Amino acid sequence: MKSFRECITINTKKRREYINITSQVEDILKKSGIKEGLVLVNPMHITASCFINDDEQGLIQDFDEFLEKIAPYDVEKYRHHRTGEDNGDAHLKRQIFGREVVVAVTDGKLDFGTWEQIFYGEFDGKRNKRILVKIIGE
Amino acid sequence: MKSFRECITINTKKRREYINITSQVEDILKKSGIKEGLVLVNPMHITASCFINDDEQGLIQDFDEFLEKIAPYDVEKYRHHRTGEDNGDAHLKRQIFGREVVVAVTDGKLDFGTWEQIFYGEFDGKRNKRILVKIIGE
Amino acid sequence: MKSFRECITINTKKRREYINITSQVEDILKKSGIKEGLVLVNPMHITASCFINDDEQGLIQDFDEFLEKIAPYDVEKYRHHRTGEDNGDAHLKRQIFGREVVVAVTDGKLDFGTWEQIFYGEFDGKRNKRILVKIIGE
Repeated sequence: MKSFRECITINTKKRREYINITSQVEDILKKSGIKEGLVLVNPMHITASCFINDDEQGLIQDFDEFLEKIAPYDVEKYRHHRTGEDNGDAHLKRQIFGREVVVAVTDGKLDFGTWEQIFYGEFDGKRNKRILVKIIGE
Repeated sequence: MKSFRECITINTKKRREYINITSQVEDILKKSGIKEGLVLVNPMHITASCFINDDEQGLIQDFDEFLEKIAPYDVEKYRHHRTGEDNGDAHLKRQIFGREVVVAVTDGKLDFGTWEQIFYGEFDGKRNKRILVKIIGE
Repeated sequence: MKSFRECITINTKKRREYINITSQVEDILKKSGIKEGLVLVNPMHITASCFINDDEQGLIQDFDEFLEKIAPYDVEKYRHHRTGEDNGDAHLKRQIFGREVVVAVTDGKLDFGTWEQIFYGEFDGKRNKRILVKIIGE
């Protein structure tokens, strides 16, 4: 069994941002030389999500609007803010969209359907954040 | 390390449908000959979810009602529909219920508790859709 | 390839409870002797979630309040209760927070960012429940 690990670093301009990281994950997969196995992609932070969906800008705005409606940014609203933070909404958005994605590797490629793309969803950005890519297989 | 890959194809009669695919995943696991490892089960589409819960029809209706309330089908509502699509709700439902499940394989079997069953949740059906089953282990 | 399996058993005092199980998962990882690979952590029950977030009590209360608002405990509300159960809300809460986490193992440790902690979220407790930890790698 082989394993390979690399981080992607992202610094968003906005507090919330959705970034297609598929080609970066593909590059890491190529570097690994692994042909059959599994890739795990997860933020190393707890106010962000990795998820797989369609790269269509209207849809991404729908996602953002949905998350902001269901778990709004609100300095007054969350008990978490007693610690001095203002990102309770970001922790909740992450819970709704989940943490990680696990993707099959087949013939050295991400084993994806036509429209599957990996996104990093940042909910409390403007700082350097790391995404972990771990590949196991052979 | 061994790996095995097979797709399950499903064509739902209704737009939204929840199908227990546990026995199909078990059949693929048997075929693989893998005794210890992990199984990844994911739709190759972005308007569907694989998830694990109880096979009880009232509960499945509760799930459907919840998703339809929180992310309703609505031709006018979503920016994604500027592309000509009408399935913005289905992309959102998929985000809430997640994409994939990862299941342990122990002694050649899905390592499940009593009530765990694998479902394919389709939110924009009536077409052929593929579910990827990837198994790694030995 | 090596694999290792162990269960954690938890009996909560309250119906809903959020328990940090990181050190228990770390102990199992050490016992396994696996240095590079993946760990899967999932409840063997369908009214609970394993998830990764910050161990901050205000935040945990925010999570609980959010889940109770979006999928409230209500004996009258769910079709699932025709079976005699009263835990329809717990199945829904589990769907929102997800089932499992998959964590990278690097140099014999959980490959975590600074604030990542593994939680077991119980939504229908006061009974013995099992959490499966399955590790593969070498």
